[in-house]
Amino acid sequence: MFKVGIVGGTGYTGVELLRLLARHPDIEIKVITSRSEAGRPVADLFPNLRGFLDLCFSQPDIKTLSQCDLVFYATPNGTAMKQVPALLAAGVKVVDLAADFRLSDPALWEQWYGMPHTCPELLQQAVYGLPEIHRDNIKNAQLVANPGCYPTAVQLGFLPLLEAGLIDPGSLIADTKSGASGAGRGAAVGTLLAESADNFRAYKADGHRHLPEIRQRLEHISGKPVSLTFVPHLLPMIRGIHATLYARLNQVDADLQSLFEQRYANELFVDVLPAGSHPETRTVRGINTCRLAIHRPQGGDTVVILSVIDNLVKGAAGQAIQNMNLMLGLPEQRGLEAVALLP
Amino acid sequence: MFKVGIVGGTGYTGVELLRLLARHPDIEIKVITSRSEAGRPVADLFPNLRGFLDLCFSQPDIKTLSQCDLVFYATPNGTAMKQVPALLAAGVKVVDLAADFRLSDPALWEQWYGMPHTCPELLQQAVYGLPEIHRDNIKNAQLVANPGCYPTAVQLGFLPLLEAGLIDPGSLIADTKSGASGAGRGAAVGTLLAESADNFRAYKADGHRHLPEIRQRLEHISGKPVSLTFVPHLLPMIRGIHATLYARLNQVDADLQSLFEQRYANELFVDVLPAGSHPETRTVRGINTCRLAIHRPQGGDTVVILSVIDNLVKGAAGQAIQNMNLMLGLPEQRGLEAVALLP
Amino acid sequence: MFKVGIVGGTGYTGVELLRLLARHPDIEIKVITSRSEAGRPVADLFPNLRGFLDLCFSQPDIKTLSQCDLVFYATPNGTAMKQVPALLAAGVKVVDLAADFRLSDPALWEQWYGMPHTCPELLQQAVYGLPEIHRDNIKNAQLVANPGCYPTAVQLGFLPLLEAGLIDPGSLIADTKSGASGAGRGAAVGTLLAESADNFRAYKADGHRHLPEIRQRLEHISGKPVSLTFVPHLLPMIRGIHATLYARLNQVDADLQSLFEQRYANELFVDVLPAGSHPETRTVRGINTCRLAIHRPQGGDTVVILSVIDNLVKGAAGQAIQNMNLMLGLPEQRGLEAVALLP
Amino acid sequence: MFKVGIVGGTGYTGVELLRLLARHPDIEIKVITSRSEAGRPVADLFPNLRGFLDLCFSQPDIKTLSQCDLVFYATPNGTAMKQVPALLAAGVKVVDLAADFRLSDPALWEQWYGMPHTCPELLQQAVYGLPEIHRDNIKNAQLVANPGCYPTAVQLGFLPLLEAGLIDPGSLIADTKSGASGAGRGAAVGTLLAESADNFRAYKADGHRHLPEIRQRLEHISGKPVSLTFVPHLLPMIRGIHATLYARLNQVDADLQSLFEQRYANELFVDVLPAGSHPETRTVRGINTCRLAIHRPQGGDTVVILSVIDNLVKGAAGQAIQNMNLMLGLPEQRGLEAVALLP
Repeated sequence: MFKVGIVGGTGYTGVELLRLLARHPDIEIKVITSRSEAGRPVADLFPNLRGFLDLCFSQPDIKTLSQCDLVFYATPNGTAMKQVPALLAAGVKVVDLAADFRLSDPALWEQWYGMPHTCPELLQQAVYGLPEIHRDNIKNAQLVANPGCYPTAVQLGFLPLLEAGLIDPGSLIADTKSGASGAGRGAAVGTLLAESADNFRAYKADGHRHLPEIRQRLEHISGKPVSLTFVPHLLPMIRGIHATLYARLNQVDADLQSLFEQRYANELFVDVLPAGSHPETRTVRGINTCRLAIHRPQGGDTVVILSVIDNLVKGAAGQAIQNMNLMLGLPEQRGLEAVALLP
Repeated sequence: MFKVGIVGGTGYTGVELLRLLARHPDIEIKVITSRSEAGRPVADLFPNLRGFLDLCFSQPDIKTLSQCDLVFYATPNGTAMKQVPALLAAGVKVVDLAADFRLSDPALWEQWYGMPHTCPELLQQAVYGLPEIHRDNIKNAQLVANPGCYPTAVQLGFLPLLEAGLIDPGSLIADTKSGASGAGRGAAVGTLLAESADNFRAYKADGHRHLPEIRQRLEHISGKPVSLTFVPHLLPMIRGIHATLYARLNQVDADLQSLFEQRYANELFVDVLPAGSHPETRTVRGINTCRLAIHRPQGGDTVVILSVIDNLVKGAAGQAIQNMNLMLGLPEQRGLEAVALLP
Repeated sequence: MFKVGIVGGTGYTGVELLRLLARHPDIEIKVITSRSEAGRPVADLFPNLRGFLDLCFSQPDIKTLSQCDLVFYATPNGTAMKQVPALLAAGVKVVDLAADFRLSDPALWEQWYGMPHTCPELLQQAVYGLPEIHRDNIKNAQLVANPGCYPTAVQLGFLPLLEAGLIDPGSLIADTKSGASGAGRGAAVGTLLAESADNFRAYKADGHRHLPEIRQRLEHISGKPVSLTFVPHLLPMIRGIHATLYARLNQVDADLQSLFEQRYANELFVDVLPAGSHPETRTVRGINTCRLAIHRPQGGDTVVILSVIDNLVKGAAGQAIQNMNLMLGLPEQRGLEAVALLP
Repeated sequence: MFKVGIVGGTGYTGVELLRLLARHPDIEIKVITSRSEAGRPVADLFPNLRGFLDLCFSQPDIKTLSQCDLVFYATPNGTAMKQVPALLAAGVKVVDLAADFRLSDPALWEQWYGMPHTCPELLQQAVYGLPEIHRDNIKNAQLVANPGCYPTAVQLGFLPLLEAGLIDPGSLIADTKSGASGAGRGAAVGTLLAESADNFRAYKADGHRHLPEIRQRLEHISGKPVSLTFVPHLLPMIRGIHATLYARLNQVDADLQSLFEQRYANELFVDVLPAGSHPETRTVRGINTCRLAIHRPQGGDTVVILSVIDNLVKGAAGQAIQNMNLMLGLPEQRGLEAVALLP
């Protein structure tokens, strides 16, 4: 049994980590911190955990966290970077679900997150936690930067095409749609049910924080400068991301279906659907799978990739556990083997 | 490994059985029948099962079904009663998720279901599959009538009060609300999203088929005639039943909270919430638990019980598997240990 | 053209008043106040008003308000009672959409609203604004207390039965369900879409603030003490209240359908549906109508009344305008003649 | 008062025509036909019309329809083309809300709609009913082909850019999202609430019937061949279309905001939002307005246009009435002046 801690357990990524870890056969949840809820039973705030988890939230405390084998940060951006150096020094492994270690350039981080980075030296050490690309590095990492939800859906969609050099990296468009849980558990007028149900809208069309993360990673894959237009939208539903990806093909006669099937043949959490399919977000609700479909509308040079994930699982807590499994030498799928609810 | 079959696998109770059984460690799904979809891969119709189930739907065939240890009927009302005698004769155990064996009086069945009962002799043999009341009989049963969704939520709410004789059985009111999956997977105008989202209404206030089932069972519990007003409503959501139950107390000073906690102390799938709670349907989404709360509005003799279940799990497929576990001598909770998704 | 003002224009009752008044042929909206949004164009906060309303929010100011013929208070409870005396002294008519003048007993007000009432002398002067009962008084009133949303739906449902003495006033149950807009436009975790969509729950089963209002009014109608069990629930939708009302009949053979039809024959905003109907909340979405249906489940002495309104229209802003029309001598339905959106 | 008829009144465009026409001051609805519902009161099927419309559905009959000034066809594709010649011969004006007269090439029609066109000679006579482009022709037309919902949202978004020659017509992408009412009122499994709520998916990514209509019209505007990638998606909500449009700019320094504002300065039903805005579908729910916003993501040559309409109003019945007003010499906005419901 490995001992894990969770810092910042009151948001949606926190409760999702708890849901998944509570049934993980090799993990003991040692500590869950929350400044605002310290002392309160976790199952009181999240009644789905009644009977599965007998812990109370506690004040964050590096000493207690240092006794864990691995600690998850499910905190707002800018928190992990202040505490992680001490944990690493204590030999603890860390998975950060926030953005603190996702960008390799501290100046870019400051530009998009509005504060200076306090431990830029760790940016190079941190491994970007997308196992389908960086599996070997993750296995040996002490610090993993868990990818953002949109970046996961977008990268897995463009990956085979960029690796194969089949699309023009200067032509990329990601029209992405997310359920409201992506906005977090904080009280806000804009995501009230009465404001966002039976409604649909784009947001941050002029620049979302996930844009530099995606661009940096796609450039890393492609080896070339990438031009990406990224328009996120808010869906009137709870969970799920659907990324509709567009690019211009360099080669119009490539067998894209086979390309995707081969690239992901050994990936447990990427499912390439049969040609002509339209993946539904509900088919990944609650599970760690990304489902993809490839379309070639007739008579043009555009390829369309449809990519769906659960923003809280493959887009956050599930992928974090997939990374943890790799870092701890456990089978990659351990604790992540559920079937999605349907309907 | 026990071999099970499912007859009528294309509705919501069918796919929910498949979802739960696909990960049950002691069960092998041997056959799934569907006249309309015979030959089609199950995972093609229900993509949440991709990678978990490699079967195709087949034509119903008593011979194949007879090789199973247990067969579930997830068919429309009136189907099981025609096929079950042959299976029982072959030594197969049967759990019927339809209404065929729920009412002990064949005349009552004909009145509410509009057709004569074809094997009334089995009505006495069938055990009513509510384990919290009939556990011992279920263990020894060859034929179990799995309760309806509303009847499960209503019975578990009234049970301790009726057993203890604390309420007037002539005063019962069940105001029940169900998600749209309760109406089944058949195409119908009334349950289109465009008709039933952002909308709420009662239906069948003058007589729903679950009324005689509930009344019969409450009378069995109480040992007295029961007068029940039962008004079902359609909720603009997918899963979940919320029963709000009202009754007049005979004794206004009884400790109802303790009564419920003691009655259900050893029940794995009934969770009595702390006094003052309001159970939410989402806290049982996808799981086999019934959560209950007891309220005593001040200054009257009325007790209010709030009871929530997932209509497709504790209200159908989950309870059927709980019954199967009992019938096969397996631990009652096997395959039913998930944590509900939240949010 | 009458000049009206709105105090507290940033909540849902405020924007609903604006929507309805913007197209009212006899009304000019003179002023809309908001401390937090003063100076901001109204159509900037509520883009549905673009092109229909050219005002900015202003700081509340009694002098400006005094120039209006009538002022609506769409403020939190406890605000109107501080300002209304000055407006009444200036000869302005007032409709308060909050609770400040709904209860005739100041001690009861303090008990439920947690603060002393600052002008108890006005409680007797204020007319309760349910036109179906108090129309004549409203016509001559200077101060109208607009009813709460639940109280409107519940009173219109019980009214004919209590007036006729056909039900036992000691047996009343109101199982009510409201869309999330009833919780207001304030940011709150509990009414985030990610928390309250695909979910259903009761709340305040042990005592909601509308309970004393309803009880007081039902006792006024009935002339007898009333015992009411009132359990509100939160629906996963935006607008609409559905009240399911239960009572014991004194006379089991009365023609209830005729009773209701006759009682409401001349009411423009109460629609008694044909026997056997189930009113849907969507059929009153955006309009000022209450639709009712009466059910007599067989074999008992219980009557069931189904009552639906739009909580923001007949339950708030629409009824306030109906009252305004009466107070200003305008036709009662002026500005309230829309057809509900369906689907 | 003009007399109008509606053929095929039981679908969503039919009931929406009825809702809008019932309150139109210059129109008398003379006849509503439906083969399946003939004899049934309209308000029985659509209870939102109770008290507003006293008609029954009748069998379709050319003689009765010939007495109307104008007839709307709200029928499935392929019906109007069989009946319209007789009505035109009788001097009746016609607005067809189906696709029968939208494509000018009968071979293209046959290819996409799977049946030969029975009156190809009318394809040239029919005027395409997008008033923002064809207003003068519509005024004089006897037969108007009302545009599809997606085509309306897409054309109004691209129109100023194509007219000004500012974008490359070979680079167009329309990522469109529609509420479930766009799928019609027919019973279907895929649009059941239990299947499509809390879910999101693309559909017909390889070719939707609106593609040839859009392409033809954009080529007409542009005067050049157009390459369009068109991916529709199904939103878990009732009404509303959001089109997210992408194109490559020929000139990266043009003032696009001004261009749009000037192009639509005199259009009553097109609202260009301030720079940086994100239009929400709910702000056009129930009304005939298209709201647009223009975005220029930094550092690229891509322009993004966000375009929202109500698919049943500006995308169907509202636009049909706008066309009717023009054809009958009435003010264009008559009967279409409502404010959208919010929330």
